Amino acid sequence: MAQKPSIPKGTRDFSPIEVAKRNYIFSTIKTNFEKFGFQPIETPSFENSETLMGKYGEEGDRLIFKILNSGNYFFSKNKIELPNNIVELQHKSAEDISTEELIELNKFTSKISEKALRYDLTVPFARYVVQHQNEIEFPFKRYQIQPVWRADRPQKGRFREFYQCDADVVGSNSLWQEVELVQLYDSVFSQLGLNGVTIKINNRKILSGIAEVIGASDKLIDFTVALDKLDKIGEEGVKKEMLEKGISNEAILKVQPLFSFTGTIVEKIEKLAQLLATSEEGMKGVEELQFICEHVNEIGLQTATLDLDVTLARGLNYYTGAIFEVTAPKGVAMGSIGGGGRYDDLTGIFGLKNMSGVGISFGLDRIALVIEELNLFPETVTATSKALFLNFGLEEAKYAMKAIAKLRQEGIKVEMYPDATKIGKQFQHADKRGIPFAVLVGEEEMKNKQYGVKNLVTGDQQKLSFEELVNLLKENK
Amino acid sequence: MAQKPSIPKGTRDFSPIEVAKRNYIFSTIKTNFEKFGFQPIETPSFENSETLMGKYGEEGDRLIFKILNSGNYFFSKNKIELPNNIVELQHKSAEDISTEELIELNKFTSKISEKALRYDLTVPFARYVVQHQNEIEFPFKRYQIQPVWRADRPQKGRFREFYQCDADVVGSNSLWQEVELVQLYDSVFSQLGLNGVTIKINNRKILSGIAEVIGASDKLIDFTVALDKLDKIGEEGVKKEMLEKGISNEAILKVQPLFSFTGTIVEKIEKLAQLLATSEEGMKGVEELQFICEHVNEIGLQTATLDLDVTLARGLNYYTGAIFEVTAPKGVAMGSIGGGGRYDDLTGIFGLKNMSGVGISFGLDRIALVIEELNLFPETVTATSKALFLNFGLEEAKYAMKAIAKLRQEGIKVEMYPDATKIGKQFQHADKRGIPFAVLVGEEEMKNKQYGVKNLVTGDQQKLSFEELVNLLKENK
Repeated sequence: MAQKPSIPKGTRDFSPIEVAKRNYIFSTIKTNFEKFGFQPIETPSFENSETLMGKYGEEGDRLIFKILNSGNYFFSKNKIELPNNIVELQHKSAEDISTEELIELNKFTSKISEKALRYDLTVPFARYVVQHQNEIEFPFKRYQIQPVWRADRPQKGRFREFYQCDADVVGSNSLWQEVELVQLYDSVFSQLGLNGVTIKINNRKILSGIAEVIGASDKLIDFTVALDKLDKIGEEGVKKEMLEKGISNEAILKVQPLFSFTGTIVEKIEKLAQLLATSEEGMKGVEELQFICEHVNEIGLQTATLDLDVTLARGLNYYTGAIFEVTAPKGVAMGSIGGGGRYDDLTGIFGLKNMSGVGISFGLDRIALVIEELNLFPETVTATSKALFLNFGLEEAKYAMKAIAKLRQEGIKVEMYPDATKIGKQFQHADKRGIPFAVLVGEEEMKNKQYGVKNLVTGDQQKLSFEELVNLLKENK
Repeated sequence: MAQKPSIPKGTRDFSPIEVAKRNYIFSTIKTNFEKFGFQPIETPSFENSETLMGKYGEEGDRLIFKILNSGNYFFSKNKIELPNNIVELQHKSAEDISTEELIELNKFTSKISEKALRYDLTVPFARYVVQHQNEIEFPFKRYQIQPVWRADRPQKGRFREFYQCDADVVGSNSLWQEVELVQLYDSVFSQLGLNGVTIKINNRKILSGIAEVIGASDKLIDFTVALDKLDKIGEEGVKKEMLEKGISNEAILKVQPLFSFTGTIVEKIEKLAQLLATSEEGMKGVEELQFICEHVNEIGLQTATLDLDVTLARGLNYYTGAIFEVTAPKGVAMGSIGGGGRYDDLTGIFGLKNMSGVGISFGLDRIALVIEELNLFPETVTATSKALFLNFGLEEAKYAMKAIAKLRQEGIKVEMYPDATKIGKQFQHADKRGIPFAVLVGEEEMKNKQYGVKNLVTGDQQKLSFEELVNLLKENK
């Protein structure tokens, strides 16, 4: 019986035009990564489970795709210990299972599955740096463009297999790295024609400073989440929410300037400096921001804007310095299209201490959606041939194939219709494939060493010499 | 406790220079695929298990990496039925388990694992064609360059994760496809500088013809395997082996010409035509060979040689027409670096009948080994920056970063050492990274708007204007 073919939920097939569009974005990102001195590495699609497990929190562990041991996994070298009450367990529903039973089951899982699919590119990178530390010349600027897998519930714009595009530097505390990463974002988005993105910056130390000033580090997330709603619910609304969350009126008064936190990024930083004057850590954050902002401004950005957003708290328990997030140009409804930051101890989990890292990531799928929406894919992004030679029979085909071989040596994408079927059908094929030119070589043309060329967009027809044909097809490459 | 980091056996990390070398090969293959009118598609890394299982034989099924259902896989919607004697089973060794018990276990596996990693690109392609048949304009020339995974025992040159690079056409019976695929092999290997590869061709129908003539279809494999040893063990040795395998003396006499099967490909085909004159299927194969050979010769190959090898029986139960295999230039000890053929019913397994396909594959890992051995990677294949600006302090760094921003806009890969450490250390960094130029901008140079440039290979030093610097770095790109 033939199976009705389908693919797992949350995964995608990419058609030729989709691949071409994605490759255009990949290639732009890659070119810019390399212009900025980043070097590519690649790591395996699956890692040993112990490399990944426990690195992304409990939720992350659950979302990691686990690979069953190969061969007869039941009889691996590790004696499998089935949970004692395995036979009863299978009839229990998920809700009825106890924590102890779940732990038993997880132990069982770790025996029958010792490998897992990559969940992000950061942990494999940290593993790579530690494993290859003696071959690496630090500071090490690496980029990595590879798919990752997450057993998340699929939804619009969220997939179970998707690409990450990361650039990170390890082994340097210099703030010039942050300056360059802002320039890198600007360079990529400008080259993609995606003008007017906002690169939002914050600093973990500023957030700590705010927590210190309001005297409530445990309420910091509640505070930033509420503050972030200023545009939507107004100052009174925000303050109401803060009070509800248990932040004192006194604390709110202390950071009153944050409620009218407008102006240029330079003005904002000045306001922050006054606000956080009493916090040593906060002032360190202000200094870092100042350095980055000053030098980014001095060197200049092409089309992006750098802005300070004190509510930006992305990956709070992870980043230790700068925090970045990029938002699409105004008017496009899309969340962040990139993000990153500095983390002081990237490789500590694998035993290499004091290795500071800072990096950024590009969200390929969302960038593709934005470029599509704004109709910014260049016309040259196509997956199709430049010309289709029609097939009029064996002798004509031979003649055509000789011309085709020469055109291909000139780097021109060109093909011949494989069968000498009705000409109408062959034209239709070129049309459906979006091929711009049809080349007709019949007896007459063979005799005169000419090529009949029909422009399938305009309908124009002309007879060309081989050289003229080369020029026409090259010019329209 | 810090873990000692490692990766699963049979997988690899790729360093920057390794990625650069592999990308050079990928990009050459890709460019040629597109010149020949092939279009890229991509399919998910994992497929539903039922898409893959049963398509590669029993051995293949065993080598497919299976993914554990996500979440609490024990409590999936499908009621899991544990094998009855599961508790005893866990204490049995693999040898003691009965076939019935194994079937039970496999059933259990198929409940806890419903997805599996791609084993090759052909079955996912067949699935793609059937699933998207209404969007595809046939004949469909697709290429696909993606990793596949096999739980094979790792050994030299054999990995558990490796790339396949496939080009296939479906929906056309025209032998021009075979002609073009030979040209495509020639074009890729010529462009890689890998001159002198042999493209061996055979035809399934010729093998059937030979079987018919020797009157022993069931002995065909034994026959070709023995014949293949002609070079090594001589005519007598081969005949001895054939007799041992139960092929009759009479049969051997009938195909005597195969023992002195030398000459040009045209001569070989003539000999075959005489030998197989009584076999209708054999003669069909000879005709196909003739067409392909004649037109390949007429159009001409750049550096490869097309040769007939009647012992070529690659994937015998799979191919139905032409069979291809490419061997490295003489003197390089390496098995096949590519292969392919025609299969009449590619998509039948998924319910779409009468869809003939023909395709070829490039063995990336082996090609990389051969190019490395012959020292054929161009010097331009590098993962490193063109120049490193040394860091003499804040003011100098600012000046340098402005020049760097402009150089990058010119498309030049360039970077600055992030810290103002000892100059010796900075030179050492450039050296270890293989960066060819160091740029020195101190007080003096800033004043004169000049850039001190040291060629780290020759040791030459000069002072250049910005324009001269751009030209120098562009020229050496």
